[in-house]
Amino acid sequence: MDISIFNKSAIEAFEQLYRATFINSLGGFKSLVIVGTKSLSNITNLAPFSSFFHIGAHPALFGLIFRPGTEERHTLSNIIARQQFTVNHVHASMYVQAHQASARFPAGNSEFTATGLTEAYEAGIDAPFVQESRIRIGAVMREKIDIALNGTTLLLSEIMHVSMPADCLQKDGFVDLEKAGTLTCSGLDSYHQTERLARLTYAKPGSWPQAFDTE
Amino acid sequence: MDISIFNKSAIEAFEQLYRATFINSLGGFKSLVIVGTKSLSNITNLAPFSSFFHIGAHPALFGLIFRPGTEERHTLSNIIARQQFTVNHVHASMYVQAHQASARFPAGNSEFTATGLTEAYEAGIDAPFVQESRIRIGAVMREKIDIALNGTTLLLSEIMHVSMPADCLQKDGFVDLEKAGTLTCSGLDSYHQTERLARLTYAKPGSWPQAFDTE
Repeated sequence: MDISIFNKSAIEAFEQLYRATFINSLGGFKSLVIVGTKSLSNITNLAPFSSFFHIGAHPALFGLIFRPGTEERHTLSNIIARQQFTVNHVHASMYVQAHQASARFPAGNSEFTATGLTEAYEAGIDAPFVQESRIRIGAVMREKIDIALNGTTLLLSEIMHVSMPADCLQKDGFVDLEKAGTLTCSGLDSYHQTERLARLTYAKPGSWPQAFDTE
Repeated sequence: MDISIFNKSAIEAFEQLYRATFINSLGGFKSLVIVGTKSLSNITNLAPFSSFFHIGAHPALFGLIFRPGTEERHTLSNIIARQQFTVNHVHASMYVQAHQASARFPAGNSEFTATGLTEAYEAGIDAPFVQESRIRIGAVMREKIDIALNGTTLLLSEIMHVSMPADCLQKDGFVDLEKAGTLTCSGLDSYHQTERLARLTYAKPGSWPQAFDTE
């Protein structure tokens, strides 16, 4: 098998778009969500994110990364203005619309209108959910951390509201994303379905983990 | 379709392990890597992580989250001691070993020995790679951020070295993770293969993105 090796100098010498494609796809599969927000003048906004990551379960915290200069694309400024936003999973019947929500539409246009996705509102969350999405999270921002190394912003937020199909929740609290049809993505533009190999029992020294089923 | 809805109070009332399972699996599919480190006394260490996330391409930065109190499990303390570490993708023939690397082995035992995974060294990186892994990254830590909200640690690191099968790199810089057999995970214990739906063209107002193939 031929192996390709790149060091830091080689990576820095890549053409800019090639490098962005390379580094964005290098780290592994990523979560895929569309974030719903609303401006102070009530214009709704949708944007896809692949940087959702788990921080803790109690309180239920997650992170999102915003690139430098993306504040004009409204998501971050809307969240800062209203504190609340929604996180909506993406399945196969809506991933083209989710991708299209990343286009730079003229100011004043809602990505809901532009993509044909449907606004929905649920108890107590001051931001639009995506009706077509099967697993939906309502969140409130808790802390904004500026990353000096490259000018990105890390937003830490808390989960305030969850809705999902009842049959996707297993007896032990596991959310069966595959049953919900939730997709994963890689790089900037690649979308993937999944197929479970197994859930494995808790790892302990002296014995191998075993596959198990929960329902 | 029956919908289950949970608010913050309901989530906080969950039993602790149920809540951890629920929140860890709620956010979507995650990257799956095993991190290789070496202590100052040359004991090697391996640990699986599902929190690798992209921060930027230039410099090539990524983040990893360390839970409170996990320093005794050596990964973070080894990285702080030596600054360098490796990030290794996981495929179907080695995911049980990767999961087993999360067991709490006695101090002084290497997870390489305990799991049967093989140490490998590549130019200039002062930490063990995993020989069985097909896509491998050598990294250097750049900044440690303590997250006061829940005591976790965010480590920001830069990619210094990459090796991968040559045929997994497409002409435009896209790393074909599926071709490499890289897995994704969900929750604390669920492992998944992927099947590509499409790569989609760059989103622009006024036209729908199209599927395309690169090779």
